[in-house]
Amino acid sequence: MLIEVLPSAGSPWVPPLANKIAVVVDVFRATSTMVTALANGCQAIIPVLTTEEAVERRRTEKGAILAGERKALKIEGFDLGDSPFEYTPEVVGGKKIIMTTTNGTRAIQAVAAAQCVWIASFLNAESIAQSIFKYLENNLNIEGIVIICAGSEDRFDIPDTLCAGMLIHRFGNGAELNDLGLAASMLYNLTKGNILETLQETEHGRLLHSLGFERDVVYCAQTNILPIVPVLKNGEIVWNMDNY
Amino acid sequence: MLIEVLPSAGSPWVPPLANKIAVVVDVFRATSTMVTALANGCQAIIPVLTTEEAVERRRTEKGAILAGERKALKIEGFDLGDSPFEYTPEVVGGKKIIMTTTNGTRAIQAVAAAQCVWIASFLNAESIAQSIFKYLENNLNIEGIVIICAGSEDRFDIPDTLCAGMLIHRFGNGAELNDLGLAASMLYNLTKGNILETLQETEHGRLLHSLGFERDVVYCAQTNILPIVPVLKNGEIVWNMDNY
Repeated sequence: MLIEVLPSAGSPWVPPLANKIAVVVDVFRATSTMVTALANGCQAIIPVLTTEEAVERRRTEKGAILAGERKALKIEGFDLGDSPFEYTPEVVGGKKIIMTTTNGTRAIQAVAAAQCVWIASFLNAESIAQSIFKYLENNLNIEGIVIICAGSEDRFDIPDTLCAGMLIHRFGNGAELNDLGLAASMLYNLTKGNILETLQETEHGRLLHSLGFERDVVYCAQTNILPIVPVLKNGEIVWNMDNY
Repeated sequence: MLIEVLPSAGSPWVPPLANKIAVVVDVFRATSTMVTALANGCQAIIPVLTTEEAVERRRTEKGAILAGERKALKIEGFDLGDSPFEYTPEVVGGKKIIMTTTNGTRAIQAVAAAQCVWIASFLNAESIAQSIFKYLENNLNIEGIVIICAGSEDRFDIPDTLCAGMLIHRFGNGAELNDLGLAASMLYNLTKGNILETLQETEHGRLLHSLGFERDVVYCAQTNILPIVPVLKNGEIVWNMDNY
C-alpha cells in the first residue's frame, strides 16, 4: 500500500486518484469544524469554492446555513464563521450547511475524483483509521491512500502535517510513503507527547491566538474525542454511520 | 530576522523577495553538482529552464558545455548529465556550463528577484552560513532569508528540506521561522547523526540508487567538504571568492 501526503490545497502535484482513498485534513479549522458540526447533528455540509457559489447555492437549498471564512474571519453576511464553537446542536441540528473556507474546501475539490473522500482532524483520527481498515478489507481494488493537507494559503502547514503523521502512525504500518508522508510520520513521532504546544508555535496557531481564537486552537488539538467518519457523497459531506 | 522555507520549485506561494537573501537547495543533484563544478575550476554556470533555451544559448557562448538532466538522466545530445562525478577539473576547468535540470534551475528562476541568490548543498553548507553572517553585517537592509528547496518534480523532498534545516541550525538561531522552516529544523535535529541513511530512504535517493547513481547519493550526503559560495550574478552562477 502506498500512502502519499500532499502539502497544501494548491499543491502543484496531485497523484492519480483512481482506486485510491483520499483523506482531507484541515486542522485549523475547516475539517475540525465539519466533524464537530456532524457530531452536533448537522445533516450535511456542502463544500463550495467561492462566496458567490455559496450564496447562489443557498437559493436552491432552503433553510441551509451559510458558513465560511476568509483570512480566519467570518465572511460578511454569512451566518457562521469557521470556529467549531459556533456549530452547536441548537444552531446546526438537522440543518444543511453550505461552507466555503480558504483552504479546506479547495483541498476537498482537489481530491474529489478519488474512489472515496473522507474528512479527518485530530478530533476523529482514530475513527477514520478504523474505517479505513474496514474499507480496505471490503474494497480490494484500493491501491493507495492520498492524504491532502489543506495547508495555509498554499503553504505547508505543521498542524495538518502532524495530523497526517498521526493517521499514518495508525494505519500506515509497513506502507510505502512518499517523502512528505515520511516527514509527517517523523514529525508526529517527535511531537506526539505535546501536540497542543507544537500547534501553538505554528504560524496558523499564532494567527488564531492573535485573533482571539485561542480556545479553537486548544479544542482542535484534542485527539480522538469524536467518533465521526464524514465522507463526501454526491458533493455533500455526511456522517457515514455504516462505516463506523 | 524571518527565515522562510519553500517546499518545491513550483511552490504556488512565494513570499516577497525585496530586501531578502535567497538560498537555493537541490541536494539531488543540481546544486551539489554546481558547487562541485565551481570547486573544480568551472568559470560560471548559466542556468536555463528548457533544453531548447540551452541549445540556443550555446550559439552565443562559444566553447560552453551543455549540461542537464530530465528524469535524472542526461539529455540526449548534451555533453554532461547531472552527476557531480562528471564535472572533473579536466572537463570543466576554465569553462562555462549551460545547465538545465528538472527542479534546480526552476528553483533559481523562482527567487531570482531577491537581493542576492546563493547556491547551497550539504557539501558547502557551512561556507554559505559564514557568508550569510558576513553579508548581514554589511547589508543592514536585509529583512529575511528565503530558502527554496527545489524538491522533486513539484513535490516536497526530504533531502532539500534537511539541508534547509541544517542551514537554519547554523544561522537561524533566534530567527522567526515559517512552518516549513520549523519542520525542517526539527527534521534536521532528528536525523543529523545519520544524514546518509535518511537520504537513502527518500524517494529521490531510491530513484538514484535504482538508476545506478548510488555513489552520487553518498557523495551529496557529505557535509562541509567544499568551501565554495556560488552566487547568481547577471544570470550566471559564479564562485564569489570575495565573500568567503
